[in-house]
Amino acid sequence: MTIDTARMVQMANAIRALSMDAVQAANSGHPGMPMGMADAAAVLWSEYLRHDPKAPDWADRDRFVLSAGHGSMLIYSLLHLAGYEQPTIEDIRNFRQIGSPCAGHPENFLLPGVECTTGPLGQGLAMAVGMAIAERHLNSAFGNALVDHKTWVIAGDGCLMEGINHEAIGIAGHLKLGRMNVLWDDNNITIDGSTDLSTSEDIKARYEATGWHVTTCNGHDFDDIRRALDEAQADERPSLIACKTVIGKGAPTKQGTSATHGAPLGDEEIAAAREVLGWDAKPFEIPEQVYADWRAKNADHAKARDEWQDRLNASGQRKEFERRMAGDLPESFSLDNYIQKLMAEPQKVATRKASEMALAQINGKLTETIGGSADLTGSNNTKAGGIGPLTADDYSGRYIYYGIREFGMAAAMNGMALHGGVIPYGGTFLVFTDYCRAAIRLSALQQTRAIYVMTHDSIGLGEDGPTHQPIEHVQSLRMIPNLLVMRPADVVETAECWEIALREKDRPTVLALTRQGLPQLRNAPDETDMCSKGAYRLKKSSNAHKVTLVASGSEVHVALECAERLEKEGIGASVVSMVCTQLFDEQSADYRADMIPANTLRVSVEAGTTFGWERYTGTDGLNIGIDRFGASAPAGDLFKKFGLTADDIVPQIMNKLPN
Amino acid sequence: MTIDTARMVQMANAIRALSMDAVQAANSGHPGMPMGMADAAAVLWSEYLRHDPKAPDWADRDRFVLSAGHGSMLIYSLLHLAGYEQPTIEDIRNFRQIGSPCAGHPENFLLPGVECTTGPLGQGLAMAVGMAIAERHLNSAFGNALVDHKTWVIAGDGCLMEGINHEAIGIAGHLKLGRMNVLWDDNNITIDGSTDLSTSEDIKARYEATGWHVTTCNGHDFDDIRRALDEAQADERPSLIACKTVIGKGAPTKQGTSATHGAPLGDEEIAAAREVLGWDAKPFEIPEQVYADWRAKNADHAKARDEWQDRLNASGQRKEFERRMAGDLPESFSLDNYIQKLMAEPQKVATRKASEMALAQINGKLTETIGGSADLTGSNNTKAGGIGPLTADDYSGRYIYYGIREFGMAAAMNGMALHGGVIPYGGTFLVFTDYCRAAIRLSALQQTRAIYVMTHDSIGLGEDGPTHQPIEHVQSLRMIPNLLVMRPADVVETAECWEIALREKDRPTVLALTRQGLPQLRNAPDETDMCSKGAYRLKKSSNAHKVTLVASGSEVHVALECAERLEKEGIGASVVSMVCTQLFDEQSADYRADMIPANTLRVSVEAGTTFGWERYTGTDGLNIGIDRFGASAPAGDLFKKFGLTADDIVPQIMNKLPN
Repeated sequence: MTIDTARMVQMANAIRALSMDAVQAANSGHPGMPMGMADAAAVLWSEYLRHDPKAPDWADRDRFVLSAGHGSMLIYSLLHLAGYEQPTIEDIRNFRQIGSPCAGHPENFLLPGVECTTGPLGQGLAMAVGMAIAERHLNSAFGNALVDHKTWVIAGDGCLMEGINHEAIGIAGHLKLGRMNVLWDDNNITIDGSTDLSTSEDIKARYEATGWHVTTCNGHDFDDIRRALDEAQADERPSLIACKTVIGKGAPTKQGTSATHGAPLGDEEIAAAREVLGWDAKPFEIPEQVYADWRAKNADHAKARDEWQDRLNASGQRKEFERRMAGDLPESFSLDNYIQKLMAEPQKVATRKASEMALAQINGKLTETIGGSADLTGSNNTKAGGIGPLTADDYSGRYIYYGIREFGMAAAMNGMALHGGVIPYGGTFLVFTDYCRAAIRLSALQQTRAIYVMTHDSIGLGEDGPTHQPIEHVQSLRMIPNLLVMRPADVVETAECWEIALREKDRPTVLALTRQGLPQLRNAPDETDMCSKGAYRLKKSSNAHKVTLVASGSEVHVALECAERLEKEGIGASVVSMVCTQLFDEQSADYRADMIPANTLRVSVEAGTTFGWERYTGTDGLNIGIDRFGASAPAGDLFKKFGLTADDIVPQIMNKLPN
Repeated sequence: MTIDTARMVQMANAIRALSMDAVQAANSGHPGMPMGMADAAAVLWSEYLRHDPKAPDWADRDRFVLSAGHGSMLIYSLLHLAGYEQPTIEDIRNFRQIGSPCAGHPENFLLPGVECTTGPLGQGLAMAVGMAIAERHLNSAFGNALVDHKTWVIAGDGCLMEGINHEAIGIAGHLKLGRMNVLWDDNNITIDGSTDLSTSEDIKARYEATGWHVTTCNGHDFDDIRRALDEAQADERPSLIACKTVIGKGAPTKQGTSATHGAPLGDEEIAAAREVLGWDAKPFEIPEQVYADWRAKNADHAKARDEWQDRLNASGQRKEFERRMAGDLPESFSLDNYIQKLMAEPQKVATRKASEMALAQINGKLTETIGGSADLTGSNNTKAGGIGPLTADDYSGRYIYYGIREFGMAAAMNGMALHGGVIPYGGTFLVFTDYCRAAIRLSALQQTRAIYVMTHDSIGLGEDGPTHQPIEHVQSLRMIPNLLVMRPADVVETAECWEIALREKDRPTVLALTRQGLPQLRNAPDETDMCSKGAYRLKKSSNAHKVTLVASGSEVHVALECAERLEKEGIGASVVSMVCTQLFDEQSADYRADMIPANTLRVSVEAGTTFGWERYTGTDGLNIGIDRFGASAPAGDLFKKFGLTADDIVPQIMNKLPN
């Protein structure tokens, strides 16, 4: 049963009215997109979407992503009209005001029903790819009875023009994610004006070339929209539905122009739009009939969820399913035995290799990890523990060959983490965080447990040269709020960092790992869990304490060598391993002052920019690092060239010490 | 006349031999690509490329870009064999060793003939788009007699899979850059193995959908390569030439596999390859006949350049052409009069608007600027001074509608700057530097004069919320070596920053500009050129100097207000405008100590991360900033919420001062 067209028109007009009124009240925002896509969204949400407004966190709900996040009033309208507890009309009235869950762009942490934070263009669609992967993977583990939902996306021209779109649809096409359907708001308008200004692309042909099913509909004709959605659902490939729309549909003089894109329509135009639309309700008032029509199927939705709940209750997999969707690790999970074994048999390995060793343990103990690499599997050492590839033929695999698509990988990881039930990790070279930095930032903002395995973390990668050698990367990633950047110094710290990263449910982690081998620095069986405070004293001073060396990763053993030489000269020197500045900054002032005492000469040693290290050394300390681009040569030669050896550092310390 | 096939085979084998031997000697590198593309490259370089090995900087040479930069031995072989002064055989012997111009990846600043630094995949091709734009634009200004060359690219699967490829070919297709031809090393192999692992895309169909001409050839059949290159040259669209090749061609047991991609072949395989190839010269020895064949056309090349030089000498545009290609500004160029006018009539404008005002002057005085925006023209205020669009129908335009392609824009800007003759600038929101950070880094590494107009530089953008509000961006960009990050405080500083950026021939600049209006802080006609030292004292203390406020951009006027209130309490407070930390760090220790005296309470004020500001304030100073994500609300509310007003800051300063 579908609602008759006249009432459907009003359902769509309710979106238009809320959108133009909220943007006007806020005196900022984007009315054009919600008004243009109101008809398609009304059909999708009232007739196709599997969800239960009373239970926004229902595990088997369809995922809906508004990739064109600037059209946020569309999703706020949909959630409100469909009967979600939030946003209220009051929330919508306060669109874009401080404290309102109706932020300028949709934020997953502010509003249930918002599956992900969108606005940075292209990333919503790319995260949806990750959600669709997670759905198929969990389906392979838990069956149709528990996991059987779709992923829907509304995207604009901007989402499709961004480079990440190429990467995202490449992954989706290759993995044949047929339950993913993208409604493209095909309105020929961008901020600068007509799309003709900047593009001549045949988008549909491009999607077809990438393994997608493509169909077109009149985005203002309900029956045609239904026909297209049916077709998309029937096709086994992911689908692009080009909805031909008029941006700002309903605004009599401005519709079809970029004037509706990102600015209030103005009182006069809004009044005229009310006339055209036949919408006589006051701002922020919705007629009862419209509410009733929007919520007509909610009883059915609740019933579907009840039936699903019954199936879950009856399932032998219930506990495991609930644990995984809650994001909890198994109570038995621990790397202690493994770490004790390392203590017993110290070894020199690169931390990327140490990460592989940790992963062999982790992937054996946890079923929820999904690994991958952007075409550097053998270099990132990300395939471990016997996990097999996740492919279009076998979604039960736990390793994704992402191809040379760093940004697409990172966004997909965000989508998987947001979907829940899986813990994604993925690798590339640390320097190529620059290619996916916008997605790493969204991991942090969205509070996702995405774990980035970033290897070749300094000039230690050697011959590949400056394009491949991180200089500013570790430090600049440390500046992203809510992101943990860990740079372990040896095989033991690497294991500890992995365990911390896995236990951080609401924070992403970047693991910065070496290409080159590093000696094991710890072997005391009772000294475990040292990394959780972010930094700890690896070596006390023997003589009177004069110098504190603070180092991370591959420079910690260099710092230890410096300290030993200083001690031989009668100068007491301690060494602190700075594994994670963010965790260290969260410790008490006493702990921090005890670790790095201000009355000693404080020396930082890190093979990267020195900028920012003054926080830990003061401006009267010594900052050993690299404040220029790297060079191409064997790693050992580079450490000498850039003065990162004890031979280079110790004399500088001696010079700096008061006589 | 083409050289007979048997001798052509040896010309190509010379590339193979040098590549496998150099990688073996270095014990690191990528032999597979140079060996696979040796035949196509030999045809291109010996028969098609317009260049003169004796004059690598000839302005009207074809540009050749090895986008698959890991195959660097290909270009080193080509340059050497073709008779360039560098690299010598000794340089090639020292491939990937310290001091050799034959770095792991090709570096434009180490070796003439290397047009750009490649290695970060996808960017070479995207920079070539910029070179091809510059060529057509200069052609429109100087005519066929002076500017009439092509742009050639060799790219691999990685270059085509990266997201930036979508953006780059979208721009090239839209602008109908028919003189750009890309040879795709279509070998079905990536590092992880077969391309089937990660992609199912019909690449040729995608290029066709994007407005490209596409042809295919057997990459090991000289005649077929010639046929394809002829076809590409004849077509008015940009061309993709899919060269079907065998990676590592010639290595008897490893060719066609990923084993040849990124590791030495081993002595045994190399010996066997010599047999297969019929190459009996010793490592790093090239038979005289092979040299002679490679250089057979060099006299013709020299003649072509001589004829071009004659045309230039005879041209009335000679001085202007030479000036522009040298990258010098006209001697008369100055913004002094404009700045004096500002001094006379102070005004409150956003610095993005101030940038537009400066650009109106600049674009009127200079002919070489080419502006643009990634679909935010009206927000970035980048279109100024009456410049018109550069389009497929009119390459003389000076404004590019880049579309929603930040990364593609930045890479194209690098390509234009590297080509020479133009000064590119382009805009987006500052937060979206994350989308093009990898290209900004390459601007810095390659020493290009690319000017990034990054607006909406803090929470001051207001309602769009945390996805659009830079927090870590300004500071994290400051960490990139050789990049100038300027955050001007008012309309005068903005003009000064623009002039500095234009005069920096070998450094890129990021201008961080506000959305919101800022009061003009300077109006003393004799105080000009204050920004060139990076930071300067905007206000001296009246009372005994106790406090030094260091602020940037939109927080400078807040710092001034704080200082005024402190003075009223009898506390002497100076204010330093920190326009550009990089330039400030280059000043003498005396100057720096004088600006920010250590015996005062040093207070930093910037609406972004505080991390790193300790360099200027010490750890006993006060760092006012934002160490979390932003929020959606009107700007004024946000400055209050985040404590960036004098009301919030002054009490903290008072508390911190010793009694």
